[in-house]
Amino acid sequence: MADVELIIDHLATIATVDARGSFVVHRDGAIAIDNGRIVAIGSRESIVASHDARNGIDATGMSAIPGLVDCHTHAVWAGSRIDEFDRRAQGQGYEEIAAAGGGIRSSVAAVRAASDDELAAGAARRLAAMRRLGTTTAEVKSGYGLDARSEAAMLRAAHAGAALADVRVLGTCLALHALPPEMPSAAAYVQVAIEEILPACRELATAADVFLERGAFSAEECRPFLVAARALGLALRIHGDQFSECGAIALAAELGAASVDHLEQTGADGVALLAASGVAGVCLPLCALYLDLPMPPARALADAGGAIVLATDFNPGSAPCDSLLTAINLACTRLRLSCAEALAAATAAPAAVLGIKSHVGRLVAGFAADVVLVDDPDWRAACYHLGEVPARVLVGGRG
Amino acid sequence: MADVELIIDHLATIATVDARGSFVVHRDGAIAIDNGRIVAIGSRESIVASHDARNGIDATGMSAIPGLVDCHTHAVWAGSRIDEFDRRAQGQGYEEIAAAGGGIRSSVAAVRAASDDELAAGAARRLAAMRRLGTTTAEVKSGYGLDARSEAAMLRAAHAGAALADVRVLGTCLALHALPPEMPSAAAYVQVAIEEILPACRELATAADVFLERGAFSAEECRPFLVAARALGLALRIHGDQFSECGAIALAAELGAASVDHLEQTGADGVALLAASGVAGVCLPLCALYLDLPMPPARALADAGGAIVLATDFNPGSAPCDSLLTAINLACTRLRLSCAEALAAATAAPAAVLGIKSHVGRLVAGFAADVVLVDDPDWRAACYHLGEVPARVLVGGRG
Repeated sequence: MADVELIIDHLATIATVDARGSFVVHRDGAIAIDNGRIVAIGSRESIVASHDARNGIDATGMSAIPGLVDCHTHAVWAGSRIDEFDRRAQGQGYEEIAAAGGGIRSSVAAVRAASDDELAAGAARRLAAMRRLGTTTAEVKSGYGLDARSEAAMLRAAHAGAALADVRVLGTCLALHALPPEMPSAAAYVQVAIEEILPACRELATAADVFLERGAFSAEECRPFLVAARALGLALRIHGDQFSECGAIALAAELGAASVDHLEQTGADGVALLAASGVAGVCLPLCALYLDLPMPPARALADAGGAIVLATDFNPGSAPCDSLLTAINLACTRLRLSCAEALAAATAAPAAVLGIKSHVGRLVAGFAADVVLVDDPDWRAACYHLGEVPARVLVGGRG
Repeated sequence: MADVELIIDHLATIATVDARGSFVVHRDGAIAIDNGRIVAIGSRESIVASHDARNGIDATGMSAIPGLVDCHTHAVWAGSRIDEFDRRAQGQGYEEIAAAGGGIRSSVAAVRAASDDELAAGAARRLAAMRRLGTTTAEVKSGYGLDARSEAAMLRAAHAGAALADVRVLGTCLALHALPPEMPSAAAYVQVAIEEILPACRELATAADVFLERGAFSAEECRPFLVAARALGLALRIHGDQFSECGAIALAAELGAASVDHLEQTGADGVALLAASGVAGVCLPLCALYLDLPMPPARALADAGGAIVLATDFNPGSAPCDSLLTAINLACTRLRLSCAEALAAATAAPAAVLGIKSHVGRLVAGFAADVVLVDDPDWRAACYHLGEVPARVLVGGRG
């Protein structure tokens, strides 16, 4: 008999990607947890027979899925963009609002004016809400600071918020999100981003990201920044094909990026190139819903053998939604993913994008004990019920 | 000084349709409540100066909107249709699944097999979840029983659940939802519905409803049932134009129905006829989202002067979502309604459909104290944030 801290017992179903990468569903199961990690998982009879637990959770009538991994968020911000939302509802376009000084630039002004405490408090509040909705690991991007001090402040706020909310957080330096108002040209700003912002963010981030889009940055402007980031050991991400195809997938393949994110406008050639490249395609159906864009071609990408990933894009402008479960629901209703495909795309697959797939994103012995309990014997209730609030969410066995 | 039970004070904004039918926003406001009703509403200075309250809610930094009125739900059911959801995600059609014995008929078998206690417990659980998400009044339909005993049992369960969850509930007899398997023909079932089901539901319902659709019931089959219901004093509702235009709007205009609900396939002629008829158009964007149908023409109907209403269609098959706030969000992002239009369409307008507009659905002196507190100084946060969970929800001043 092994002594363990906690057993979650009587689980009607447990759904996860297993150690080999196959999707499995255990029935009548249990999970033994010690020291923040899963010690054993499978049939409850075998686990209860071989483990003595100091604490227990009776999950009769419930299911377990891995803690959700939201690999694309902008969850640190200041100010309000609710008025912009209402104007969009009345017919103004997102790019039109951005051109008139709204959009990302209004968030930049608010973030630069905010104190570190304000930024951290906002991040903590949002991450706590995400945790209640099942997200146990979140990537958080900078990108509303656009100078070395404010970009680093955003990432510090993300980590401070993570500690307060007890969520795993990885930072991404999104210096090339928009051209800051004080900069004369994109070329001049790219130099600042390389020489000042990347070094200031190096210890706070595991990846670098760019907004490769008409009206934002071109592939030629993004390349030197991404090359510099890679030289610092950062993984590479690219926002691409949201409003137009501007070469994001080709650049990602060239540089060995971890992902291209958005893909609302990606055509058949882009799908084929992305699938062949091994670069993951991060689909953000909530953003497509908010902006009334075409849905990303997740089904085609999956059928072509590409790596499909789901994320919220949680941000104040184009996706003020903190629920990855909602994105999973949309994946089933609008992207034609099965429940199993959608769950894998929100757990094991994003853990791979974030470089943490060896210990996060699966309910497997040795992995972090990040578990979402769903109040239904069928784990697919998590996908089916729009607005589902999990019964309980554990991070490292806590919660 | 008037003595009152409760003052909600320091509200940054209060948004409501007022007594005259205009949309208003009070700033720096308060609400005085006594005996379950609103006694006074407006600027906090005047209200605090003239009322002594035994209890107070400090709503600093928050906003108030009227309790939401969800006028189209099927919130009483039994069994699970999650597997059907997963099959639809993988490409099967809703009508195809229905033709194969799934869909509504599978819910009918489960409801007929359920005990009264099971039905009431399910209703209470769902209504409590709806209340947490801001719904203070809900219409609940029968329609999974399809015989006198089971249809009445569903409506009794709705009222029992309402008492347990402390939500206002109005019942609707939806006998003509599907042809029950034991019935030889639609004509024979219409007779049973008129002679047995309507009398059994008369005391439990304020309205009667029909599913007027190809594969369900024709206008000619619906007419005698609706005429009989009207003779019993019930208001009339019609599910129409969901998959095809089959004459629902014309029948509603002919009979003076309260609403036509769905409208996903309604063309320009239908919009014009509905607007001219005075019959309300109930839009169900969650159902359109789940089934990947066109969104209902809410903008065109509003521009034509029609009465637009929003509801969830909460049901286990085509809209397993209990959040009217989510429908409001979709109305802003997909139906091109402003925040003010969407809020009115989920409060005052559905109260009119349900025949309770004299005392429910507005924050106005004399009305029921059904109030949703939103944790943002801008009331439009309720529309903007997909997945918003209100800070507090009061029904008759309770909660």
